[in-house]
Amino acid sequence: MKVRNILGERFKERAYDIESQNLMTRGGYMKQVGNGIYSLFTPAKRIQNKIERILREEMDRIDGQEVLFPVVMPATLWQSSGRFESIGRELLRFKDRSGADMVLGMTHEEAAVQLANNVAGTYQKYPFMIYQIQTKFRDEPRARGGLIRVREFTMKDAYSFHTSQEDLEAYYERAYRAYERIYARCGLPEVIAVKSDSGMMGGKVSHEFMLLTSIGEDSVVFCPECGFRANMEACEAIIENEADGELLPLTEVFTGEAKTIDEVGEMLKMPNEKSCKAVVYQKNEDDSYVLVFIRGDLEINETKLTNFLKSEIHPAADIENANLAAGNIGPVRLETKATVLFDRSLVSATNLVCGANKAEYHLTGFTPSRDLPADTVYADFAKAVEGGVCPSCKKHSLNIKRGIEVGNIFQLGKRYTEAMGMTYDTESGERKNPIMGCYGIGVGRLMASVCEEHHDDYGPIWPITIAPWQVQICALRIDDESVKAAAEKLYSELKNAGVEVLFDDRPVSAGVMFSDADLLGAPLRVVISPKTLSRGCFEFSARDKSFREDIEAASACETVANKVNELIAQVNSKVPESI
Amino acid sequence: MKVRNILGERFKERAYDIESQNLMTRGGYMKQVGNGIYSLFTPAKRIQNKIERILREEMDRIDGQEVLFPVVMPATLWQSSGRFESIGRELLRFKDRSGADMVLGMTHEEAAVQLANNVAGTYQKYPFMIYQIQTKFRDEPRARGGLIRVREFTMKDAYSFHTSQEDLEAYYERAYRAYERIYARCGLPEVIAVKSDSGMMGGKVSHEFMLLTSIGEDSVVFCPECGFRANMEACEAIIENEADGELLPLTEVFTGEAKTIDEVGEMLKMPNEKSCKAVVYQKNEDDSYVLVFIRGDLEINETKLTNFLKSEIHPAADIENANLAAGNIGPVRLETKATVLFDRSLVSATNLVCGANKAEYHLTGFTPSRDLPADTVYADFAKAVEGGVCPSCKKHSLNIKRGIEVGNIFQLGKRYTEAMGMTYDTESGERKNPIMGCYGIGVGRLMASVCEEHHDDYGPIWPITIAPWQVQICALRIDDESVKAAAEKLYSELKNAGVEVLFDDRPVSAGVMFSDADLLGAPLRVVISPKTLSRGCFEFSARDKSFREDIEAASACETVANKVNELIAQVNSKVPESI
Repeated sequence: MKVRNILGERFKERAYDIESQNLMTRGGYMKQVGNGIYSLFTPAKRIQNKIERILREEMDRIDGQEVLFPVVMPATLWQSSGRFESIGRELLRFKDRSGADMVLGMTHEEAAVQLANNVAGTYQKYPFMIYQIQTKFRDEPRARGGLIRVREFTMKDAYSFHTSQEDLEAYYERAYRAYERIYARCGLPEVIAVKSDSGMMGGKVSHEFMLLTSIGEDSVVFCPECGFRANMEACEAIIENEADGELLPLTEVFTGEAKTIDEVGEMLKMPNEKSCKAVVYQKNEDDSYVLVFIRGDLEINETKLTNFLKSEIHPAADIENANLAAGNIGPVRLETKATVLFDRSLVSATNLVCGANKAEYHLTGFTPSRDLPADTVYADFAKAVEGGVCPSCKKHSLNIKRGIEVGNIFQLGKRYTEAMGMTYDTESGERKNPIMGCYGIGVGRLMASVCEEHHDDYGPIWPITIAPWQVQICALRIDDESVKAAAEKLYSELKNAGVEVLFDDRPVSAGVMFSDADLLGAPLRVVISPKTLSRGCFEFSARDKSFREDIEAASACETVANKVNELIAQVNSKVPESI
Repeated sequence: MKVRNILGERFKERAYDIESQNLMTRGGYMKQVGNGIYSLFTPAKRIQNKIERILREEMDRIDGQEVLFPVVMPATLWQSSGRFESIGRELLRFKDRSGADMVLGMTHEEAAVQLANNVAGTYQKYPFMIYQIQTKFRDEPRARGGLIRVREFTMKDAYSFHTSQEDLEAYYERAYRAYERIYARCGLPEVIAVKSDSGMMGGKVSHEFMLLTSIGEDSVVFCPECGFRANMEACEAIIENEADGELLPLTEVFTGEAKTIDEVGEMLKMPNEKSCKAVVYQKNEDDSYVLVFIRGDLEINETKLTNFLKSEIHPAADIENANLAAGNIGPVRLETKATVLFDRSLVSATNLVCGANKAEYHLTGFTPSRDLPADTVYADFAKAVEGGVCPSCKKHSLNIKRGIEVGNIFQLGKRYTEAMGMTYDTESGERKNPIMGCYGIGVGRLMASVCEEHHDDYGPIWPITIAPWQVQICALRIDDESVKAAAEKLYSELKNAGVEVLFDDRPVSAGVMFSDADLLGAPLRVVISPKTLSRGCFEFSARDKSFREDIEAASACETVANKVNELIAQVNSKVPESI
């Protein structure tokens, strides 16, 4: 293809803070149509097609069968699993012309069970896995970062069905490995798997595949000592308290206008970890209050709180109706209708400051083990902290980094097959619900993540396996007959050799041509100009600046094609064996 | 792949009247999820992928650039063309979580202009064509026939942009040819192009590609004499009247309860063509009445009427409020607020019966040229009739057949670029709106149409170029070691030779195995059984029964692979050259 023919314009001005969004906008890869909704120009669509091909190959390799589920589904299907009611407004609901309730698919567990139901009624048909690559819509309240977090996206989603937990686990391992292969083949061997929270999907064991980057929306907790890794949302927090020698008596102190932990701590000259703070939420379903007490220096992990409550929550809008003394809430002599919970960080804490449930007063000398009822339940609601205790090796070794989630896999169990009444007959004639796993990768987010990881200030540096074009020919001074002839010859030779080549034969300056080539991101480049021809050669270089050399014109096609194969082999050398 | 592993069940019982729906349901190709909404099992998805590949190759061949538009679009985009208001309820409208109006894409002219706008501002960038293969949703009131008429479907849609009508027309020819190539490559060289009505798309010249079949929803008009072809909707009707020698005077006659043309004709002993009937419609926009007079034996072509009125219409629900004498409406002494129109069939008619605008009375001797005002306008609202006059060669030669529309191409003109303010600078510095063409093919409908055309009572007979598998091996008596060994060897050899092979190694009867193979529709079949092995060979046959022969086991792979290539060449021999 010729650069002059690609629809889309490239420009220099910085467009956005997030680099993939900035470079892919400046490079003419995409255009916004609405909030979180994009059209893709040809360079991005070519990358997407290549990623989709890798996805198909890897899904087929683990015995997947490609199917297609609908984007628009009747609400009855989602009612059969209970998710029509339980999922929030990110599930887009509407009525069709006949007044029937419909939804836009944001995930397809229900559709997968509907398809497999009644056609897998005996144990001999198991295990099997079906997958699709299809458009999804999720009505995100906070679309951001270009293709990183959108409302409409193309996704590969896969669903496996098993007759035993062991069989699911064995298949889960194969899928896990397939995912490692997919990222490596896309030029992202850096992606790591972390334990994750299963959220609205149901099921227990799940992993997220994360690309660590400062623009990531997720926090990933690591232990460099033992290799433990988890999404912050799913990470157990182990909090230690230093025991004070002497337990002080509970004492009411006047704190006036001091309300926050910081204000009270400063007034009383006590560090935050020697306080007990109250955090107030409301349940989404009925706005009832939930009051969590936690050590003053820690933060609430809302995912763990949600899972504990089995109910979605939001920070309390106001607590006027809660009969609570805002800024002075404490666990002693507390009278409230709220659900009251205690974080484990308080179990061994002593001599804390807490609210006195009375305007302008706090208590000092609060020691939960002494001052709360003996049957008080403490649970894990705290966020893990940098330098905290590793839940696996128990060392004070935790690191926290930001990451983008580029895929996830879940052991779903029987959540959907039970709810939707899908069964099979076992060998002994029993009727059982199959056990499911599900496996998702967003194609556009993966593309943007590759750009995040592989770019410089001038543009993306696409890995050869997903680059829109493998090689770009820049013909400087196309008005020079010898340049034109040499460039057109190489263009045609490379096309015949099966190399994906982009040809820039526009009568533009070297500056414009090179900056456009940088934005288009082909990993290899051949420059042909009067100057190179005067040396009897072409200039051959890598987009990542790893080499730049003169090559002979006569053998240029072969040299370039060999380098393409070398780069492909280089990517593939990082791809683990499949299982 | 092995038959035992394909998700989906095959069964014998007739499921539906329309043969593609019946066979594709019985063959485990698809499952209904909702009204007009289907999931596809792997055999159908494989066919779809092959059709999509052919579509991509042919679009690329005519210099198309693949892009991707969103399924969900903001209403503002459709407001910018005026179609948010003008299209009926088949355009599905809803609100997102922020309350913004959104639509589900049923076509993407607006999205194409939005993408190309501002990046094609000078004449040098033209012409260009962008296309996508994407899910669409059209809220059809009458989904039917399985994949023939659905609400959600995968479509290839393409949009070309030009700086002159000549350039559009030249490109339109290339697209027309590309379409002929696509159908031929999919094994449907029978598809013909007919002139069509441009409907809601705007623009003047357009063609539909039709597969003639009795289950088609469209009527196609042909002239075997001169080759004229048109969709009934777009076909001019030329109606002739035999002149009577003597013009009779207008005479009021008592017709009592006789209301319909048939009843009045019978009472007065006059054939229907000697009457003038009134047909009453209402405009969708304001329910105002439209009254059309037409010769009594003819029917109204509502598409032509809609185009004339530039307004959607529906048959009048009731005419109570229209101040019209139901059953006795006539054009003479008519007092009404309705829009009154006259079909051309009346121009030269004489001595007709018509309503007298008075209960229980009709008029005889109505001669429009004498009895209507001299400035009466007659227009073409009639449906063409079998044996009618060809608009092209003027012979009484018209034939009418049923057809399925499997694609369409439109010369759109500036309808969208003007409305949406897309411009470019000409060489002389003028600012102009580009001229567009658009080109659509529904993938699922094409697949079902191939099945309609290529099947027998036992299942589809897929053309080799789109068949889910090229060859099926049926191993009868897999418990026989020599059968097992021979079949597995051939399976593995064919896979290595790049042949797409399906292997049935289930321990089932020959009857079950063959009827499943018939439903899966692989064009070639190899049967391996103790009986064939006793003859020292395999049985090789075509699904379409064109041959059945014994082949040597040792060279079976080569024989089969050669036959695959022969069948592919056979399909390709019917593909016209591209232009």
